[in-house]
This record gives sequence, C-alpha cells and structure tokens, in this order.
Amino acid sequence: MKIIDEEQVERWGFVEIELEGKSDGNPFLDYFIKARFRSENEEKTVDGFYDGDGIYRVRFMPSYSGVYQVLISGSFSSREYRGSFTAAEPSEGNHGPVRVANTYHFAYEDGTPHYSVGTTAYVWTHQKEDLRRQTLETLKNSAFNKIRFCVFPKHYDYNFNEPETYPYEGTPCDNSGITKKNFIEYTPDTPGNNWDFTKFNPEHFRLFESQIQELMRLGIEADIIMLHPYDRWGFSKMSADEDNLYFNYIIARFSAFRNVWWSLANEYDLMPAKSLKDWERLGNLISEKDPYRHLRSIHNCHHFYNHSASWITHCSIQRQELNQLSELVDQWREIYRKPVVLDEISYEGNIQHGWGNIGPRELVRRFWEALCRGGYSGHGETYLHPEEILWWSHGGVFHGESPDRLLFMRSVMEDVPGCGLKPRKDSRWAGIAAVPEAVSETDGYFLFYYGIHRPSFREFFFDDERVYRVEVIDTWNMTIEDRGLYKGHFRVEMPGCEYIAIRIIAEE
Amino acid sequence: MKIIDEEQVERWGFVEIELEGKSDGNPFLDYFIKARFRSENEEKTVDGFYDGDGIYRVRFMPSYSGVYQVLISGSFSSREYRGSFTAAEPSEGNHGPVRVANTYHFAYEDGTPHYSVGTTAYVWTHQKEDLRRQTLETLKNSAFNKIRFCVFPKHYDYNFNEPETYPYEGTPCDNSGITKKNFIEYTPDTPGNNWDFTKFNPEHFRLFESQIQELMRLGIEADIIMLHPYDRWGFSKMSADEDNLYFNYIIARFSAFRNVWWSLANEYDLMPAKSLKDWERLGNLISEKDPYRHLRSIHNCHHFYNHSASWITHCSIQRQELNQLSELVDQWREIYRKPVVLDEISYEGNIQHGWGNIGPRELVRRFWEALCRGGYSGHGETYLHPEEILWWSHGGVFHGESPDRLLFMRSVMEDVPGCGLKPRKDSRWAGIAAVPEAVSETDGYFLFYYGIHRPSFREFFFDDERVYRVEVIDTWNMTIEDRGLYKGHFRVEMPGCEYIAIRIIAEE
Repeated sequence: MKIIDEEQVERWGFVEIELEGKSDGNPFLDYFIKARFRSENEEKTVDGFYDGDGIYRVRFMPSYSGVYQVLISGSFSSREYRGSFTAAEPSEGNHGPVRVANTYHFAYEDGTPHYSVGTTAYVWTHQKEDLRRQTLETLKNSAFNKIRFCVFPKHYDYNFNEPETYPYEGTPCDNSGITKKNFIEYTPDTPGNNWDFTKFNPEHFRLFESQIQELMRLGIEADIIMLHPYDRWGFSKMSADEDNLYFNYIIARFSAFRNVWWSLANEYDLMPAKSLKDWERLGNLISEKDPYRHLRSIHNCHHFYNHSASWITHCSIQRQELNQLSELVDQWREIYRKPVVLDEISYEGNIQHGWGNIGPRELVRRFWEALCRGGYSGHGETYLHPEEILWWSHGGVFHGESPDRLLFMRSVMEDVPGCGLKPRKDSRWAGIAAVPEAVSETDGYFLFYYGIHRPSFREFFFDDERVYRVEVIDTWNMTIEDRGLYKGHFRVEMPGCEYIAIRIIAEE
Repeated sequence: MKIIDEEQVERWGFVEIELEGKSDGNPFLDYFIKARFRSENEEKTVDGFYDGDGIYRVRFMPSYSGVYQVLISGSFSSREYRGSFTAAEPSEGNHGPVRVANTYHFAYEDGTPHYSVGTTAYVWTHQKEDLRRQTLETLKNSAFNKIRFCVFPKHYDYNFNEPETYPYEGTPCDNSGITKKNFIEYTPDTPGNNWDFTKFNPEHFRLFESQIQELMRLGIEADIIMLHPYDRWGFSKMSADEDNLYFNYIIARFSAFRNVWWSLANEYDLMPAKSLKDWERLGNLISEKDPYRHLRSIHNCHHFYNHSASWITHCSIQRQELNQLSELVDQWREIYRKPVVLDEISYEGNIQHGWGNIGPRELVRRFWEALCRGGYSGHGETYLHPEEILWWSHGGVFHGESPDRLLFMRSVMEDVPGCGLKPRKDSRWAGIAAVPEAVSETDGYFLFYYGIHRPSFREFFFDDERVYRVEVIDTWNMTIEDRGLYKGHFRVEMPGCEYIAIRIIAEE
C-alpha cells in the first residue's frame, strides 16, 4: 500500500492510500474495499473506491492528531494491508469541518465560528481549465466561504453545451438538435444517450475532487449538489440501485475532504422521477455512510422539503414567494430549530427570469435582513454575457456590485460576539434589531438594520448605567462611522437614505 | 324657509335650506329638525342640524334631476315648512357619489369608473388659511382624487400645536407643558380640558365642510376620519351618547356632499376607550342614518378590523408587516370580497418612524403592485421640514418625487377597459400580470409589472391569430414606448432596470 503525501497528513486534513487490486469484470460493482482507522481517540471504518486502471483508493480525514493504525480489507484483493501514519496538528487556516453551532448557526470543529456567505456557480467545475482557474482566482479573497455546485452536468438556459467530462462510461445524446431555448424543459426525453450507470468515469470525479481541494486551500466550503433536474443525459432519472451506487461512490471519494457539505438535490421538487421515499432513502444513506457527518440539506423550488427530517442538518431554502424571503427567516427558525440558509434569494442580474434579475442593492439588503433575523444567504449572479458566461452557472468573474458589499458585511458578521445573531422581538415597525444568539442582552451588543427605510434620526433608550459606543454603518457604501459614546436616552443622526445600520456596543 | 343658491341645485349637487328656530336651552340636544324630500324618482327623509344663532339647516343631495317637494318638520319650530325646487342635470365633472363596482372596484353613480389614487393630510383643514389654500392648490391637477383627513384636531409628533377651531364649546388643556416628543403617547391624560360635549362649535364644522366643498369642486373625494387616537383633548374618550350625538351631527351636516366617504376611525385599535361593541354601533349608525349610503370603512394600526362586517363597504388597510403589503392585495380580495384600499403603505419621507421614511421609488412600486393585484393605494409624505409642515399632517406642497409618478400611473389606470384590474393566476415568479376585472382574457388587455425585477427581455406566447400592440412602460421615468405589433410567440427587449411594465393590447 502507498500512502500519498504521508508527510502532509494532519488533523482534519486527509490521508489517501493507493492500492492495486482486481480489474476484471466491473470492479465498481464486483469488488469492495474498506479500511479501519484507529488511533488513541477514534476508530472509524470507511469505504474505499475503485479509481480505474486496477487502482483502488481509500481516503480518510483524521479527527485528531496522533498515530493512526490502518487495516485495509475487502474483495478487491486476496490480501489484507496494514500500515500506520501520524496526523500532525492542523496547519494554519485548517479549523476542521463545519458543524451546526448554537442551534441556528455554524462553527468549525475547532470552535471557530463559520459565518456562512455563500455563492452559487452550478457547473463551474465542468468548464474548461482556463475558466475554472479564473473562477478560483475570483473566489480567492472574495466574500464567499461556501459555493454550491453540481456533480452532474447541467442542461438549462445559457448552458446547453457539453461538459468537459461525463460521470459515466458511455456516450451522450446528440446535442445538435438542442437549441437555445428560453422556456426550459426539465429532463427532456432526449434519445441517443448510451450510458453504463454501473461504470463511473474516474476522470470526471478526479477533476471534480481536485476542485473541491482547491476550494479547501482557499478556505471555502464545497456545497456539493448530488442530483438536479436540469438534465438531458438521464442522470436525474436513474434507478434506486443506480442512485445508491452513485451516492456510495461519491461518499467514498469526497467525504474525507473537510470542506464538503452534502446538498442532496437542487430543486428536488422538479424531479418527477424521484419520490419522497427516494429522497428519504438517499438522505439516510448519506447520514449513515458519511463517516464524518458532514452537513446535509436538500434544496427546493416551489415547495420546501420537510426540513424537520432527522437527516437534515440545516434548511437550504429557495424563496416560495416573489417578494418575501429574508423577512421570514425568524419564522423558519421557529419552525425547524435548525440553521436557516437562504441558498437562493434571487440573483443579481438582468436575465429574463424573475429569480435572476434583481439589483445589487436588493440582493445585499436580503443578506443583511437574513443576517439580522438569525439566518444566512447565498449570492449568485446572472448578467447577460456575450459568450454566455454567467457566474451562477459557469463561474468566471463578477460583473455585479454586490460581492464587495458582502465582503464588507462579512467583516461586520465576524465582529459579532459569540456565534451568530438573532432577532430581537420588539422592533418590527422601523427595521430589524439583532442581538447575539447565545449572549444575554445585558452583554450589550445591538445591531439595528433599516433596509429600505430612510430615517434621518433614531432615538434609543438604555435603562442602565452603562456607556455605549454608537456606530452608523452604511452597508452599501461600506463605511462605519464612530459617533462616540452615549448613555440613557439619546438620539442618533442618520443620513436619511436606504441601507443604513446602527451598531451599539456597551463599553467594557 | 330659505333655499340657498336654489338655481345651483343639480342632480348629485346639494340643496341647503335655512330656517330660524328655537335657541333657548341647548338646541343641539333639545330640538330636532327633519325634512322629507320627494320627487318622481325618490323619497327620502333626512335630519337637519342646528348651526348656532337660532339658525337650523337641512341639506339634501338629489339623486335625480327634476322637481322635488320638501316638507320640513320637527320640534325646532312650532310650524311646518313646505316648498319645492328643481334639480338640474349634473354639470360637467359631477358624476355623483362613488360606489363599489365590480365587487373590487369603484365607480361614480353615473357609471364612470373611479380609479382611486388617495393621499393623506390628517389635519390640513385645521391649519391657517394660507396653508389650506396652498394645500388645495397642490391637490388641483395632482394625481390624487381622494384625501383622508380628520374632523378632530391631532396631537402627535410634528403636530403638537392647537387647531384653528375646536369642535365643541369650551376650552382646551394648557399645552405649554406639551413638549415635542418623539415617542408619542396616545391619548395622554392631560388635565385642564373643559368641553361641553353636548354643544358643538358650528364655526369648526362650517370651516371643515367648506373644505369638503372645495375638494368637491376639484373632483376629489373626502375620506373623512371621524375618530382617531392622537388626542390630548379627550375627543377620543367621549361616552357612547356623546359619540352618537357627534356622529348624527356630522351625518346631518356632511352627508349631502357627494364626495364624502366615511372613515369611522384611523387606527381604531389604538383607542382603548372604545370596544368592538362601540365600533359596531357607530358603523351601523352611519349605515342607517346616512341617506346616501356613502362608502364606509375603518382603518387599523396593528390589527385589521373584520372587514366582512356588513356596514363596511371596502377594506381600508394599513400594513401589518414591515416589508409586505401590496403583495397581499389578492389574498385580501379573496378573504373579504370587497375593494381593497391600502390607505397607509408607508409614506415617502425621512422621519424617524418606519412608516414614514420609504423612498419614492418604493412608494410608487407599492401603488403599481397593488394596482396589478386588483387594489388601490394611498400616498403620504413625511419629509423633515424646518417649520414642521409635513404633508401627511398639515398639507402644503409636495417635496417628494412620487406624486408626478402617481399622476402618470393614474393615466395608465384610466386606460384600462371596463373598471379595474385583477391579477392573473399564472405569473408569480417574474412579476405580476393583470387583466381587466370584468373582461374576458380573450378581450386582449394585459399589463405585466416587474417591480424591482430587471429583465433585459421577456418572451410571450399568445395562442391565437390576433395581432397585439406591445408597449414598454417605464413607471419611474414616465414613458410609454410603442414597440409595434406582434403575434404568436415573441420576445420583447427591455431596459434591464427596475420599475418597468409591459402593456399588451389586442388590435381590433
């Protein structure tokens, strides 16, 4: 057995073991490989996978530093393998996988809060290398610490081309008859697909996972969409057995990457070939098979999935109404008692679809509104482009004005004491007021966000003896103005324009 | 008996008869006067009222042209009076009182549609004459064909001064201790008021009704607010008998003016001295006593009144949520099956209160959104002013940018065939689509409004052989661009900015 880059192995990093094995028949189906990892602190048995050309791999994310013993077995080979390695302390920037924290929020496993600011580029990994590199360069130093993207290629407006690679052995339908349509047909019955759903194309998955690792290096969470309805190849209509095989395969391949989140499906309710029973089976399958219990969700179009399901760790929400979304975050918190992530709040852009043509001010407003109500949002961008490169689908560069503002917002989020905000109950008619989730109000942090409202001043009253520092935050122009110290009843002059927040923090 | 300006009497105009009568005791309580009007087409008995100085008056609005016989009787005098007059055909611009039409809309009694575009200036009639004249001049040729205002004076932020006249005999509390406060106290217990609630001050009502008549001349409906909670004089805390006396008095004085609408109260739910029983009694009182059955409503703060009550002709709504209002018009239509008038949708302005500091674009958007969902809205303006003259309270001039846009919107409304729009059921995700209320879709009028959405183009499909004229309406910049004729499946290029509508009308 060969341990790849053994000297690089660290806590919440990953170890990869490469072995030769049987290649006759269909190794994806006919043989299995598993490995038991054991250290002073944990013992886990994980599945390996066949990577083509007679090569099997086992991947593992150590949850602790220290010495690990490995025992590899399975039908892939006539012999067992044993070995050991040492996981170092995590290197800088490695805080472990993201977990739910404070019921409604997120933190890395080492306790560092994770203030989720997501974006979406559904099939950026399926684009040509130049564009993929550009996407990663764009993400670097951007606001975004999570990105949603699909394992399977996408057939939808502005994206009727073929992907760089296919997930299965076989050949695609003839796309010469596929014209650019503006009223999209989901899962069209396209003749001519010829796939063997029992034989994966390892090249496709190697490419995909190399992009997950690039994201990991940038400190960005990979919210992997396992199934979706925008499909002319038949990947959305596989049988239960084929789906199970696929899910097991990507769990074996990807789960050792600490930055993985599992998004069972995008717009699950647009996939008529799947039933609730299928989703529950697949959700429970991930829940049982993923040794690291990464975050799990399922994303809707018109109708929410029941986010109360035990296998769901957080609500992954698309609006159900045209004009109301972030405003409902606090209601959904009450209902589901889980983190509320608005993964689709309409995109900054100017395409024909209502979900893809709001302005940057409104997009940023929705983020702040969700933040102050104790939730998180996702960005996307859909500006018409001469070569049809739209961030939401292909990645590339940002053309909009919201990303800079979201970076500014993230800096304000990161200054919140504890982990996450929650809405106060008492300020519905002037804006929204937030306090830290798990911190008492007497700890003295208040964030008031006025959205589209344009007060020229606001008055405050604090019924205690403390002195408070008052700052006026212009969330659009990205300025924070220190207004000095106040106590008791006081008035704060404001610019009388939209998108202003006031932050009030008790002095020590 | 003396018929005032007899030669001016016309259908839906009014006749006023002046008589001398008893002035001993308290004529407001001790004597009554009533008159029976009879013509070929109708017979009505109406109450007259005491106007001070031994003068009694009877007012009447003829619902028909032709000869009327009058019989006046009552304890006000020891004798009966008889007379007659002729009501002419209505003069130009006199279409009669406004009625509910098509279940959800309004029309004048002669059948002319009334497209309600309201505004609010609560106590404009209580201001000095110069300011009142300026208000009327502002209203002239403006968008607004309805204005909400109060009979009683107002005690509230930006309006702590005394009115020009008081409705009762007596003296007000000392206001020298009334300081400008930003957190208003409703109905404070202010000592020193000394009123006789059985003795009206006719001067107050003469002034008030002269303003109703000025509005009538401008073709503007007077939405008269009979009670309200912003009160330091005690007018919001009168007894049931006192309220009844007051309601009967203003019905007798005002109901013959065709442009009167009765708004039982503003923010009825902020008046703790009144119970549901009181509101029902007063609502039914107006319903029974008003001979002309003018429109009747009651306006909420936090909680809707039950607009299903039989005495309520239309819903007079203030938002219950910070960020959602016009979007709910179609739901309220379903619930109440009456016209939905959003009399308070937040005001264009920059004061501290959330209800008084939205921008003109958002205000105009709320009007269009309501219009396309089959409802109507009300404007108001609350900009800080060096002399504290805020349109919403005092009248004056407009400082905002919405009134011009609302005039433009009204011209689009007035071009709708039939009377009023209703939302189509099938376009929730891109904007809102409207069709005429009482006209079949095959009649071929469609108005698509995109609000904050910014499509660069939209595609349409009409499954018939007709040719349609397509216009792109910029609701903010007030332009209508004719894009020519289309049929079948077609694409309309759009500017990719907010606040655009598309109007599509079948050619004859």
